[in-house]
Amino acid sequence: MDSSNQNERRVVGLAARDVTGILSPYTYYIRQTGPEDVALKVLYCGIDHTDLHLMRNEVHLANYPLVPGHEVVGEVVELGSAVRDFRVGQLVGVGCIVWSCGECSSCKSDLEQYCNSRVLTYNDVYKDGKPTQGGYSSAMVVHHKFVVSIPEKLSPEQAAPLLCAGVTAYSPLKRFFGDQRGLRGGILGLGGVGHLGVLIARAMGHHVTVISSSEKKKEEALEHLKADAFIVSSDSKQMAEAAESLDYILDTVPAVHPMDTYISLLKVEGKIILVGVAPKPLQFETSALILGMKTITGSFIGSIEETQELLELWAKKGLTTMIEMVKADYANQAMERMERNDVRYRFVLDVAGSSLE
Amino acid sequence: MDSSNQNERRVVGLAARDVTGILSPYTYYIRQTGPEDVALKVLYCGIDHTDLHLMRNEVHLANYPLVPGHEVVGEVVELGSAVRDFRVGQLVGVGCIVWSCGECSSCKSDLEQYCNSRVLTYNDVYKDGKPTQGGYSSAMVVHHKFVVSIPEKLSPEQAAPLLCAGVTAYSPLKRFFGDQRGLRGGILGLGGVGHLGVLIARAMGHHVTVISSSEKKKEEALEHLKADAFIVSSDSKQMAEAAESLDYILDTVPAVHPMDTYISLLKVEGKIILVGVAPKPLQFETSALILGMKTITGSFIGSIEETQELLELWAKKGLTTMIEMVKADYANQAMERMERNDVRYRFVLDVAGSSLE
Repeated sequence: MDSSNQNERRVVGLAARDVTGILSPYTYYIRQTGPEDVALKVLYCGIDHTDLHLMRNEVHLANYPLVPGHEVVGEVVELGSAVRDFRVGQLVGVGCIVWSCGECSSCKSDLEQYCNSRVLTYNDVYKDGKPTQGGYSSAMVVHHKFVVSIPEKLSPEQAAPLLCAGVTAYSPLKRFFGDQRGLRGGILGLGGVGHLGVLIARAMGHHVTVISSSEKKKEEALEHLKADAFIVSSDSKQMAEAAESLDYILDTVPAVHPMDTYISLLKVEGKIILVGVAPKPLQFETSALILGMKTITGSFIGSIEETQELLELWAKKGLTTMIEMVKADYANQAMERMERNDVRYRFVLDVAGSSLE
Repeated sequence: MDSSNQNERRVVGLAARDVTGILSPYTYYIRQTGPEDVALKVLYCGIDHTDLHLMRNEVHLANYPLVPGHEVVGEVVELGSAVRDFRVGQLVGVGCIVWSCGECSSCKSDLEQYCNSRVLTYNDVYKDGKPTQGGYSSAMVVHHKFVVSIPEKLSPEQAAPLLCAGVTAYSPLKRFFGDQRGLRGGILGLGGVGHLGVLIARAMGHHVTVISSSEKKKEEALEHLKADAFIVSSDSKQMAEAAESLDYILDTVPAVHPMDTYISLLKVEGKIILVGVAPKPLQFETSALILGMKTITGSFIGSIEETQELLELWAKKGLTTMIEMVKADYANQAMERMERNDVRYRFVLDVAGSSLE
């Protein structure tokens, strides 16, 4: 879109223009606030690995210019005539999806993230046929059903990573284990999702073991995140001692890795829950599952309802997300650092505090 | 054991002697009936693929001479002094395991088949240090906790295949789905376990689709086993039409096969339940699981309690196992035919009606 339109709203964002994924300022136009929409001024947006993959066209067909961002916290500036659940000035959040059909069995089961007609927050096509653009931008207009409210006790920049990374960890733990306390859980991979997984599993009353490829993150895991135990996966003695000890492993590793090694840590009926997409197929021995009634399962972000629950949990328990705040002019450097895992544990873009132009 | 012992019971069986797996008569001695034991005269024994794999040393370390058989139906001939749950003359069954510790969490949860100290019915070592030998034999002595009673309405030869193949299909369906009716299930592979899977899933009130590699078994599946639908897995049109239609697939194929092809048939939250051990690892795309909260899980035979439940179900519903009865002198030919899937669907050895000597 290169021309303005009086029925549209001018927005400035950071967009990737090609497979280099380099972000630069981009002016575009979005729809005016429809009857069921919420218009928000973006304050903060979390930076996710998925953003980088999409910006570089490594995952899906990137539709350039591409404005990433699906951990969006903003302030309501306008409400559609039919919207009753928000007020102007309120702090709200937008996660990974901005539309679903509302009719299918997934939608009717509060599993709208699995709706085949879901529209992703960016790099997708909205029902009006226009491209969706994300939260590395001055403003968004979103259907109210895909907006969550940020609890007053929670600082908005803290909330941002919960909207994708956080709910990615929360959703399967809630869905598979409900309110069962005392479970023994493993967290594999201590990145954006993993560190929130430790905090969430502890908040749920689980005993949490961080499983990592090296000793490097041991102090971090035990001292800062208060994990209960730490295992180095390359240490066969530690792995043997931990055999058949875990009810589940939340597997956040978005790379090829050996399933059987981790299946051996599960108790009978234990589950490996995959939340990170690997670029190639994973392998497992059938006997490793069969002889212990063990499970490999997957989970994709979480529902709007679960996102709201997680925000309330964070506020109620006074939990702290570990973030590093950056301005828009640092976004490309933040991407580079994220790529080499040089962040503890999530960059959050201070959108409102930056000049995007 | 090549000498008799007055504290032991003389038995004649069919044993494999080496990796050829060829069965021949074998005389051996088993313990007398201990206080907690049941002694039984073997009447019938189902012939399972696992028998052949073990006889040929393809799976575990075969301990020759090896008397196979873990679908054993017999008549009680003697009871230990502490046994109150059976009577002499009663028809009883013995499945795949004859001992478990009784102390571990699996044993305490009626999941004794997953006990790490379980003793298999044959080719294992009992707690007295002696080899266990199976039901291709004139008699067995088994701890009463691992003996089930055959309902009076059920003919004993019909019961035999339920004790391993049947409960292998029944256990995961019961455990994962309980009494939910109306589920849409797929049965992959129409052999010993698969054909019983069709009957069991239908008895549970599920809509059953048989998935097969060719049209060959279509009439059989629909006419004889009363499956509701039939899909040829190599027919991409049929597969596409059935996409996302199944709540589960009971996967009985003990060979390498592509997981993603079958995962695509599952609804959101659908499960592939593996019950056949493949000789090499299986592969899957992580996104295939993640984007639909789908699950690959496994299940190993079933508990004694579930075995008893299944026998009662068979009697109550008047179900018919499809078997071909053979005498002992046909056992080696039966093995050959089973290997080329030339059996509908289970051979049952008429042990009492044969001369084993």
